[in-house]
Order: sequence, then C-alpha cells, then structure tokens
Amino acid sequence: MYPVNETHNPELKSWVESANDPSSDFPVQNLPYCVFEDGESSSVGVGIGDRILNLSRCASLLDSRFRAVSQKTLSGIMALPFAERNALREAIGGLLLEDTAADRAVLEDALIAQSDATFRLPCRIGDYTDFYASVFHATNVGSMFRPNNPLLPNYKHIPIGYHGRASSVVVSGTEVRRPVGQKAPADENSGPFREPCKLLDYELEVGFFVAEGNKLGSTIPIDRAEEYLFGMTLVNDWSARDIQKWEYQPLGPFLAKSFATSISPWVVTMEALAPFRAPALERAAGDPSPLDYLANDRNDSHGGVDIKLEVWLASEQMRNEGKDAICLSRGNFTNMYWTVAQMLTHHSSNGCNLQPGDLMASGTVSGPERDSRGCLLELTWDGDKDNPVPGSQRTPIELPTGEERKFLADGDELIIRGYCDDGSHRRIGFGQCAGVILPAN
Amino acid sequence: MYPVNETHNPELKSWVESANDPSSDFPVQNLPYCVFEDGESSSVGVGIGDRILNLSRCASLLDSRFRAVSQKTLSGIMALPFAERNALREAIGGLLLEDTAADRAVLEDALIAQSDATFRLPCRIGDYTDFYASVFHATNVGSMFRPNNPLLPNYKHIPIGYHGRASSVVVSGTEVRRPVGQKAPADENSGPFREPCKLLDYELEVGFFVAEGNKLGSTIPIDRAEEYLFGMTLVNDWSARDIQKWEYQPLGPFLAKSFATSISPWVVTMEALAPFRAPALERAAGDPSPLDYLANDRNDSHGGVDIKLEVWLASEQMRNEGKDAICLSRGNFTNMYWTVAQMLTHHSSNGCNLQPGDLMASGTVSGPERDSRGCLLELTWDGDKDNPVPGSQRTPIELPTGEERKFLADGDELIIRGYCDDGSHRRIGFGQCAGVILPAN
Repeated sequence: MYPVNETHNPELKSWVESANDPSSDFPVQNLPYCVFEDGESSSVGVGIGDRILNLSRCASLLDSRFRAVSQKTLSGIMALPFAERNALREAIGGLLLEDTAADRAVLEDALIAQSDATFRLPCRIGDYTDFYASVFHATNVGSMFRPNNPLLPNYKHIPIGYHGRASSVVVSGTEVRRPVGQKAPADENSGPFREPCKLLDYELEVGFFVAEGNKLGSTIPIDRAEEYLFGMTLVNDWSARDIQKWEYQPLGPFLAKSFATSISPWVVTMEALAPFRAPALERAAGDPSPLDYLANDRNDSHGGVDIKLEVWLASEQMRNEGKDAICLSRGNFTNMYWTVAQMLTHHSSNGCNLQPGDLMASGTVSGPERDSRGCLLELTWDGDKDNPVPGSQRTPIELPTGEERKFLADGDELIIRGYCDDGSHRRIGFGQCAGVILPAN
Repeated sequence: MYPVNETHNPELKSWVESANDPSSDFPVQNLPYCVFEDGESSSVGVGIGDRILNLSRCASLLDSRFRAVSQKTLSGIMALPFAERNALREAIGGLLLEDTAADRAVLEDALIAQSDATFRLPCRIGDYTDFYASVFHATNVGSMFRPNNPLLPNYKHIPIGYHGRASSVVVSGTEVRRPVGQKAPADENSGPFREPCKLLDYELEVGFFVAEGNKLGSTIPIDRAEEYLFGMTLVNDWSARDIQKWEYQPLGPFLAKSFATSISPWVVTMEALAPFRAPALERAAGDPSPLDYLANDRNDSHGGVDIKLEVWLASEQMRNEGKDAICLSRGNFTNMYWTVAQMLTHHSSNGCNLQPGDLMASGTVSGPERDSRGCLLELTWDGDKDNPVPGSQRTPIELPTGEERKFLADGDELIIRGYCDDGSHRRIGFGQCAGVILPAN
C-alpha cells in the first residue's frame, strides 16, 4: 500500500520552476490539494512551487472519470476509490512534469500565485474527532493534576478520543476570537463567574481526512485502515484551559475547544507521504501490546509518519517592531503512541460510520524532550512561574520585545509548520497553519 | 414570542378526517415536519392525522417565497428567518383547515398514508450536541459511582454537554447493531478485552433543532434564544455502559455513544408547542441562581415544555407471542434542570457557531420518581440485582414472557413516545422513536 514509486523520484522536475527549488514545500513529488476562492465560487487546486494549479480549469486535460476535480470542494475526490485516487495523483503529476505532453497553454492559464489565493476549508467536514495520542502530552498534562498517577489505566490500551465541533473548524489565516466562558470559583466562599479566557493556548496537532467511509454497523480492519485515509493536514486545536477546567467533568471538553480549530489549507495525500513512513513509536518495556484489532506488522514497521513540526509565535508588538517570529517548539509526528491507522480503526470498531471528509486530529504532538512540547500548558508548565517543573527553564517564555508569555495574548500570531525531509527525497511540505488572536467581545 | 394564537384554537378542524380524532398526534394545530422517500429522492412533508402532506407536490399553492418546501430535506425551511417560519406554518395550516380555499384536488393528490411512508432524517445534521440537563439523572448516575458526592460542583452552574457524533444519527425504525468494544480489566491480574457490549442501554431524551444560526465569534443572548430554535424531536441516545466505563476518562463518552443515536421522524415546531410552555423546574432552596447570561424572567416562567414522555419495551419473544409492549417509565420534560434556551445560549456563549439543522439533545430525561427514570441504568440501578437501590422494586425488570431485563437484549424493540396534552388544547404528538437491537457482528 502506498509504495515508494517513480512519483517520488527526487530527480523529477516540473515546468513550474519554483517547484524545483529544494526549499519548496511543494515540489512535483508532493501535489497537495487545496480549495480556494475562484470568483463567486471555489475551486480545487494542487500546490506546485509557489503556484496553485486550478484543477477545474484543466479538467479537459484529465480523463473524464476524474470529473470530481471540477467540484467546489475536495469532497468528491476524497470519496474516490483507493485506486482512483492513486491514478488521479499520477495524472496530475503528468500535467506538471517538465516534459509533460499536455497542452501547456491550458495549464499555464490554470496557474495562480499562492500569494494571491484566498483559501477555504478543503471540504465539508461532516464530523471532527480529536484524539489524545501522544503519551508524552498525556503524561505531562496528567502529572500537573495527578502527580502520583499521571497516566490513566486505559491510556496504553485504547486510543483515547472525543467528538469535536465541526462547525468551528476554520482555515489557516482566519482570526480567532478569544472566547468568554465560565470559570471555577476562586475559593470556597465564592461562586463561578464569567469572563474572557485568561489561559488561552494552542495545541500542535496533525489531522487526517477520511477518504472512503464505512457503513454504520461495519468496521475497518487495521490492515486496511490506510486505504480509508485521504491525506494529512496541520491542526491547531485552540484551547481555553480555564474554561475547560471548570466544564469538563464528567463529559469532557466542550466550550473550551469549540470556539475555533484551525487547519492548514493544504491536504498532503498519503501517497505523497509514502517515502516518509516510519516505525511506530516503540512501546516501553512493560507496556502492554495493543489488542488484536489494533495490531499488525505493518503498523509496527510503517505506522509512523516522519513529519517535522514547528511552532512559531509573533506578538503584535514583535510584528510592529519588525521582529521575526520565534520558535516555541520542534517536534516529530513519529513520537505518537498511537498511529493514524490505529486511531481510524478504533474509531470504527464499534460500528461508527466514517464518511469522506471527516476530520480526525492526533491530539497534541509532544515528544520526550522539553523543546518538543506541543502547547503552552506544557511549555510553561501551566503558566505557573512560581512552581516550575524540574528542568524547565521556559517558564515563562521571553519574547525579543521583553514581553513574557505563559499563555497567548491578544494580537499574538501562532504559526504551525510541518514538512518531511530525509535528505534523500524531495521535501514534502504542509505549508502552515496560522491564526491571530482577537480580543474578546 | 410564539404566542398562543388562533392557530392553536382547539375548535379548528381539518378536511383530513383522521386529524380530527382527539387521540391523533397530528391535528391541524400540530403540523410537524418530516422527510420521506419520494421515488428516487425525498420530499418534505407535514403530518396531518394519519397522512402526510407532500409539500413539494403542493408548492404551487404556497407563496413563491416558500420555495424551500420543495427541497429534499428540511434544511432550507430550518434556515428561514423567524417570521417566515411562522408565516409558513400559517400558510400550511390554511391548506389543511376544513374550510380551505385552496385547490382540494391538488392537496388530496399530495397526501400519502403515514403507514406507507419510509422516513428519512429530517435534515443534514451538521453537528450533534448532547447535554446532561436532568439533575435527577445526573444525581442518580453520580450516586452509583460517587455515593457521597453524586453531583459535581459545576452541575448547577453550567449546562453540561459534549459533542456527539452526527454521522450515526439515524431515523426511527433503523435497526441498531449491538456494538463491540474494549472493556475494563476484570481484576488487577488481567488486561482489558474486546467483546460485544453487555450493558446496552437506551436514554430517553428530547432533541431540538437549530433554526437560524449565529456566526463564529458571536453569541446568542438568552432573551432571543428561542428564535434560534426550529422544533423538537424524540431522541434515543443508545449507550454502551461497559464500553463507556473504560473509555470515558479523561475526555468523555466516545464509542459508547457513536454506534447509533435514533430520532423520531417528526419535528414538532416551537410554534406548535406554544400552548404547552411551562415554568422552568424550580430550583431547590439553596441552589445557586444561574449566572446572568443564562437568566431572564421568560426562562423562569415559560422555559419548560410540558411534554409527556413514555418508554416502551417489547422483546422478540413478546412480539412472537403476540404480547403488547410494556411501559418502562413515564416522564415529563418539565423536569429538566436546564431549559432548551439555556442550553442553546450556553452552547454559543464562547462564540461557537450554531448552524441550521444542528441537533441538540437534552440528556436523559429523568424525574424525581422511580417510575420516571429515563434509562435502564437508573431503572435497574446499574443492573445489580444483589444491590438494589433503596425503594427500587424494578431490579430486574420482569417481562410478561417470564424474561428479565437489566439491560437490552438482542431482538428487543425500544419505543419512545411523547405528546403534549393539557385537557384544554388539542393533543400535540411527537409520534415515536423506535429501534430493534440486532446481535453484534
């Protein structure tokens, strides 16, 4: 499944010159999908160098069975059968290779600059599910609230997840309004109160879109799970820690998450990621083996995806003073305790029907090192300056303007970047997932 | 808002004779919407007596501004502005009154028997949210697991809710496959295991559909909340108690719920329910007042809806032996601690965007009496025959065949019914929400 093949050959070049720059996120080996505004409507595009190929404008160059490329969103392409999705990738690649036999005039007419594009969500997201698949994140967060018992007994047996809010998923670049919400009473003599969130955080996550779905009552076996995956994207699961703390018992996070979830505009297909599949995180000695329905050899050997992830912050003052964003953390998606195949198979294991365009996210991607923690809650250890975690020197974070951050301030821009780069293949980038915090209403 | 007006006059009669039977759920004062199969497609209809008026077949008799009646689902009608929805109700009522001036031949041609109809979901449900708004249910369930502290500190301050799974919401009559899932280890020396759910339960709930939505980042004030409500429906939030127990910490219910949620095919509009608005449940002495954003006089005086609710069970053996279903419980929607307006306003209070067709459910409707408990977990007190709750004599439930039930068995049919009846207005019925349990795969 998704073998490394000729489409990944690093020697391949495109007639779109910017795609041949080794630092480009979007060489001809990538071909990530996006949806962008096209007049009054929207079109599906493919990223190539610093351009977008508008697929609806070159549909005549593709076989008529690929008519889904002319739809307004990716939903039709996502629903194509596995083999057809692969065939479409090869066909689009054929249009963009430097020696293409297709009509260059039509193709050049279908190119627009990414810098001119207004992106939209890639598809109608039917359901959004958020997992909690980093054992490092779960352990860090758990140890703040249960120092002697940070990891709950189910964690290493079951990919913990919860249903998220689909309506408030927004595309990168959308401004994010600081939510207002109920907070826990300050002490035994007072009651709860409502005010703007003071502990506003981001969560660095990787998302994955469902391709073919399954019928209600059926399940997706682990050895076929990846056929049901369309591609991956960057996710910022914005989180209101103070709202969550008061509301989340006993039924989980609700308004602490549903004010916004940002995703990058680009969906990098599983085919493009084939060269970067990696072994799943090795379970520690003494850890239980996954139950049979979550286990197979391929998951162990290729369940991971070697995506390098970075989080950058630029405060409003920094931007006003012309200062560059600073890097808050660097992580890797291979650090997840549960693989994307395990999450998808588990999700369907009760008969729940997954549908094309459903979005799942990994949960915060944190690694074992201090600098690979994927949210401010972990980086600044709950924002508690007076009680830092042993070994942590990042409490609070100092910005080049002299400002300090425990949590996000109004005007802050938070940027997540991701890319695959192993030195022997072309870089496969995810672009970025960015958002600026607006003050509460 | 939604005043009791001439459309509620109990003297009004319809030319559809069955609608004038006092026991009918669907007199001309009700006019609930539904969606049903119509050839290869589907149409919007309105229940009248034992018939459905196919709105797409009599659209020519309605003002052209109501063209949404010809859509395949209710989504277009749901999205109409508040005043337009009211006007449409009056227009449809005008077609069905006994002295209608409209073309009777067209109307009679647009009628089909409910018994011949195959219902579909009323709309595309963008997001589904489940609340936990019965303090009796929350106290009962809490006391099983935390006898000394049954109700968590946030309960009386905040309408607790969580995001549910929209894809697995099914219409009444859809068979429900018993889910398979991970269970907690039996003891310290064993691990978790996967098997079919053994503690399969129903939850009696009332659902409500969002009409006009709000934009991301905006909120819906409590004094306008009901303008954003389209109508109500019956919900069975099927629950796998054993799966939930192992998976739900720390992020809430997930696969224990997402295998199926059943709703009745009928959506009873808020206009039809106007005569049955009732005071919200009186808060007990010492209970906190709701925070300002959840409080107003109208909520106190008319926040409740006097819907009588019943749950009926017929096992496969009972049906084979020709025995009638037995009533498991009778409740009333006025027993909820939080009103529908409070739930909707709270949901949007962080800026979360609600959209037309979003479904919210109340959580299990349990009242203070033993016979008004809305799920088997409460009725049979966790199915524990040896440790019944004081005062409970229903552990386990004895069926007329000699069978016993702590939780649902394969082949069981579970039926929820609901109706408003105050003796002075015509009965406003919800029909039923039914489902039969299929054995696990």
